[in-house]
Amino acid sequence: MGTNITSVIISFIVCVITGPVIIPVLRRLKFGQSILEIGPQWHAKKSGTPTMGGIIFILGVTVSVILLARDFKGLLLLLVSIAFGIIGFIDDFIKVVLKRNLGLTARQKFTAQTVVAVFYTLFLYNSGFADGELYIPFLDKIAQMEGWLFIPFTVFVLLGTVNSVNLTDGLDGLAAGITVVVSLFFTIAAFVLGDRSTAVFCAAVTGGCLGFLIFNAHPAKVFMGDTGSLFLGGAVSAAAISLKMHLFLIIAGGVYLVETLSVIMQVASFKLTGKRIFKMSPIHHHFEMMGWKETKVVTVFVLITIILCMIGLIGVNNILHLVA
Amino acid sequence: MGTNITSVIISFIVCVITGPVIIPVLRRLKFGQSILEIGPQWHAKKSGTPTMGGIIFILGVTVSVILLARDFKGLLLLLVSIAFGIIGFIDDFIKVVLKRNLGLTARQKFTAQTVVAVFYTLFLYNSGFADGELYIPFLDKIAQMEGWLFIPFTVFVLLGTVNSVNLTDGLDGLAAGITVVVSLFFTIAAFVLGDRSTAVFCAAVTGGCLGFLIFNAHPAKVFMGDTGSLFLGGAVSAAAISLKMHLFLIIAGGVYLVETLSVIMQVASFKLTGKRIFKMSPIHHHFEMMGWKETKVVTVFVLITIILCMIGLIGVNNILHLVA
Repeated sequence: MGTNITSVIISFIVCVITGPVIIPVLRRLKFGQSILEIGPQWHAKKSGTPTMGGIIFILGVTVSVILLARDFKGLLLLLVSIAFGIIGFIDDFIKVVLKRNLGLTARQKFTAQTVVAVFYTLFLYNSGFADGELYIPFLDKIAQMEGWLFIPFTVFVLLGTVNSVNLTDGLDGLAAGITVVVSLFFTIAAFVLGDRSTAVFCAAVTGGCLGFLIFNAHPAKVFMGDTGSLFLGGAVSAAAISLKMHLFLIIAGGVYLVETLSVIMQVASFKLTGKRIFKMSPIHHHFEMMGWKETKVVTVFVLITIILCMIGLIGVNNILHLVA
Repeated sequence: MGTNITSVIISFIVCVITGPVIIPVLRRLKFGQSILEIGPQWHAKKSGTPTMGGIIFILGVTVSVILLARDFKGLLLLLVSIAFGIIGFIDDFIKVVLKRNLGLTARQKFTAQTVVAVFYTLFLYNSGFADGELYIPFLDKIAQMEGWLFIPFTVFVLLGTVNSVNLTDGLDGLAAGITVVVSLFFTIAAFVLGDRSTAVFCAAVTGGCLGFLIFNAHPAKVFMGDTGSLFLGGAVSAAAISLKMHLFLIIAGGVYLVETLSVIMQVASFKLTGKRIFKMSPIHHHFEMMGWKETKVVTVFVLITIILCMIGLIGVNNILHLVA
């Protein structure tokens, strides 16, 4: 327990110390991304806020993992997450510094993400860290998948989660607040399942998000950007997969999932019937359009995540007897 | 673990369901307390918000404890907390419904609180639940106090905590947000120390605060009032004391302590030197006067509490070998 808490605290402190140094740099380099195009009207006033702040917690997580990880697995999780973060960074950099509004094309982003996801999954599978087993929550079973099914399924989970966290990142403190809870859930799960490296890594992510929230809570002084959201999505899904907990992501990360489903449903409905289901998607903007204040949407979404993760913990408790 | 999580969830759900029923009643009965006198100018717009919302989580905690507590101790903690809550309720009721601005006199409140605290402490001591032992965090020792010292000290801790939580309750979501974390800390501590009843009780408090935050997060639809803050202060301190963890309250509840110290220092300084140390006390208003937004003060204070509780958990880990 002590190491995980130390991991949270180190990562937190690194963020608290480096934030006030990094944020002015991001601002001075004119990293203030115009967000007019992606949010409701009233977010226009946010257009001066610098983005790419994910660098802050990437730094925190890195320091914490390097100081505390005892074996290779912690570093592997860190590397995969950073690889996703770099894809986000390139996208942010093109949009913000080179002032090209659209960044990487959707196809370029997706291809790069797929390469990272396939590489990670194959490595896990071939090295024996993953062997096609999955815990099935609440049925208290282990499913065994053949490689031809396990590898594409795992890649799908990685890509789905990474892009869901990216979509979730649309309100002050939303993605970081939810990911504090989800990464804490996987810290506890890894701890009770006896996977120390993954626990230390997830604890570092928790601490990083907590530290980042000091600057990112409403009113945000900095946004995480794709740099941050792809890193966090990669971190959470890579950790879940290394724990054989793909399916637990659906529970703990239920809010990520609903954010993505809201976009899919909105687009599908509009294409098929010409009508919109939500006033705006992703669904956090729908609630804003209904008159909820931004802070209320964030609070409620984080509270729902806390409850979902508690339910997930009951599921973790039930699979403990399956652990060798 | 399962029972504690169930306790969080039941308490949460009761709040979510009863909140929308209770809040309109509180408003209709003209429980909207004028808060002009106690906060900065810009809080004037809040004067229409109903108070006494603590009733919501008191209900949640009560249902959860009654359904899940397996022995007498859970009920004892509930009763003591409700006793403090009733003192707060009387104060709120006089202020809000009878429209007398000052409520109970300070002397009346303090006397009533002392009676409850002394009764609880004597009961614990005489029944053998408490025997004068205290864990000393980070020195990893148990101190043994004589009754003549233990009883007044415990009463002091109860009264100090109850009134500190009361002072902390001055911004949307502040007292509830901090108490989510502190009560979760004591849930975990009670669980690992093997005290199931106290764990279930603290878990119910966590769930109650989470549920209440849906209505109390900025912009608040309801305030907890003294009804709520005295209940929460009683709950947290009664639980800590029953775990022999008086001294851990200083760590986990560090923000409560700082809030109280800020008031004491402000008053002392003004009386002795005629100068003020803070722009306004309790200290959360000081940060507002410095230009921090309310939501930022709340986020930062809650984050600090999370870190303090993590440090506290390291201390809990270190005393585990002392448990018989």
